[in-house]
Amino acid sequence: MSKSYRVAILGATGAVGTELLELLESRNFPLADLKLLASPRSAGTQLAFKGEKLPVEAVDEGSFHQVDLVLASAGAGTSKQWAAKAVEAGAVVIDNSSAFRMDAEVPLIVPEVNPEAAASHRGIIANPNCTTILMAVAVWPLYQVQPIRRIVVSTYQSASGAGARAMEEMKAQAQAILDGKTPQTDIFPYPLAFNLFPHNSPLNEAGYCQEEMKMVNETRKIFGVEDLRISATCVRVPVLRAHSEAINLEFDEPFSVAKAREVLSQAPGVELREDWQANYFPMPIDATGRDPVLVGRIRQDLSHPCGLELWLSGDQVRKGAALNAVQIAELLVAKNLLGRESLVASH
Amino acid sequence: MSKSYRVAILGATGAVGTELLELLESRNFPLADLKLLASPRSAGTQLAFKGEKLPVEAVDEGSFHQVDLVLASAGAGTSKQWAAKAVEAGAVVIDNSSAFRMDAEVPLIVPEVNPEAAASHRGIIANPNCTTILMAVAVWPLYQVQPIRRIVVSTYQSASGAGARAMEEMKAQAQAILDGKTPQTDIFPYPLAFNLFPHNSPLNEAGYCQEEMKMVNETRKIFGVEDLRISATCVRVPVLRAHSEAINLEFDEPFSVAKAREVLSQAPGVELREDWQANYFPMPIDATGRDPVLVGRIRQDLSHPCGLELWLSGDQVRKGAALNAVQIAELLVAKNLLGRESLVASH
Repeated sequence: MSKSYRVAILGATGAVGTELLELLESRNFPLADLKLLASPRSAGTQLAFKGEKLPVEAVDEGSFHQVDLVLASAGAGTSKQWAAKAVEAGAVVIDNSSAFRMDAEVPLIVPEVNPEAAASHRGIIANPNCTTILMAVAVWPLYQVQPIRRIVVSTYQSASGAGARAMEEMKAQAQAILDGKTPQTDIFPYPLAFNLFPHNSPLNEAGYCQEEMKMVNETRKIFGVEDLRISATCVRVPVLRAHSEAINLEFDEPFSVAKAREVLSQAPGVELREDWQANYFPMPIDATGRDPVLVGRIRQDLSHPCGLELWLSGDQVRKGAALNAVQIAELLVAKNLLGRESLVASH
Repeated sequence: MSKSYRVAILGATGAVGTELLELLESRNFPLADLKLLASPRSAGTQLAFKGEKLPVEAVDEGSFHQVDLVLASAGAGTSKQWAAKAVEAGAVVIDNSSAFRMDAEVPLIVPEVNPEAAASHRGIIANPNCTTILMAVAVWPLYQVQPIRRIVVSTYQSASGAGARAMEEMKAQAQAILDGKTPQTDIFPYPLAFNLFPHNSPLNEAGYCQEEMKMVNETRKIFGVEDLRISATCVRVPVLRAHSEAINLEFDEPFSVAKAREVLSQAPGVELREDWQANYFPMPIDATGRDPVLVGRIRQDLSHPCGLELWLSGDQVRKGAALNAVQIAELLVAKNLLGRESLVASH
């Protein structure tokens, strides 16, 4: 008799929540029950799941009773408010927010990189930042062959990384500009359509924004390499969905392009996409809605004998968030790390 | 009696040609005569200059008779066809194409960097590639304080870098996507609106595209440093005008952020634009139509003790092309390197 689990999605109506719902259905996650939770503001609507309409309930003190797994994607504030309560009620929380990522007691997991970290969870497992996940999936297979000395990365991050409303805002801006009108800004501080700007998350004293520091600190934690040298420049670009990254890697010894191609062509979660004849490489529109991180343009760094240049595009709502969370859930199921006393018979 | 010069613009109807016309007027270049030349296809139209309408003539064998200076921006093929003839007729050619840039006998000039190279011209002076000019203006002032060991750059290049028609194509694509239709591609190989892709110029055997190799080779020539280590990743983004660049610099010794700010705040052709409180840095829409290269987000590289991170946006049609060419012309005037036997009295 296989097991199945009672799952709650916290933040079900958001961009990642919608994707979580789709993935639980398409990947046929062993569900005994699915509860959709959101803020009181978003509650009351219904969302489709396996041909049924499921109601979205307002999250409250009783929401986590008899829930085995909570997939949380309603922001750091909501996670801080509810995660401990969910764990107290007996659930495991896979949290997509930044609330617990750097907490030493909380595993931060990319299943293709550090699945073993799941075993040590104490109720909460953190899902990394989207740009970090995409880079980790592409870089870790190379790191395993030869340690990386230094990473310099520049990102090209889409509007949807700031949520569904940000994507709509950018589209409205584009229409305004095409009509010769002045674009309006609300979610973003500056017009994004036909423009771009450095990622506008808060800056630290050294001038790095939070998004950049997530790439630095989270990658170190996921790789388990505390002193990994990383510098990042994160930029918001007028793309609807999927992030891209130009990654410069420095190894201790030369790493041949041929070897890198061989490694990445077999790496889990990676799809090598290079057509040198056609001058075709990964693009956001081809990564959109896809599971793998598309990697290509692997080149010998012209400025360093031990350097490699990589280019990638990946769907940050999918592998960068919802898919990675569902993969963690699947990992917990496979390792029997979920649903302690709350196992129920499969339907 | 001040001198004035008989000038021809070859490629007057293009994006750069139009800008050249505007700059000759606004900067009050000492003109004795202005001749507008273009391919037979574009000839016959008229362009406004100082309140008059000037006819655009088809370029032919007689076009360069009694011309002191040719500003050429009609592509490498046209320049190869006509530059020698113009020089033979007694003119100096400032060529905006890639035709002669790496020719050892042709100076390649960014006036803020290597004005002295103008003295050795033999009739042709080359205007560098747009992304190269923007980077050179921002990086050279730092190089003068302390030699740079290595540059790793990622670019964010606008549609207009591929010409006015490419910009129109991207706008039409954006409208199609907003209307739920399939975007059409003609000039670009892939849809650019709400998407992006690695620069699609031809690739060399190492996998670098021409645009990237221009940044490598032209920067070395302009700086006069043959073995300067540079690696570049050039990316076309859905921005209308102005290119941006994320530049990672490695020096032999630490270079403080404070010193870099001090140097760049006084550097010719640079405008330091950093508002750390407001999280505001250079953006394409603020660089558009402006002369200076906007530089900001100067940060200590987190991954290297001798590293600096820079961010810039610059109008590639203006400083990246037309303005740089006019500045070279002004340099020739100031150094009396123009109009040998063809000087005429000022009007």
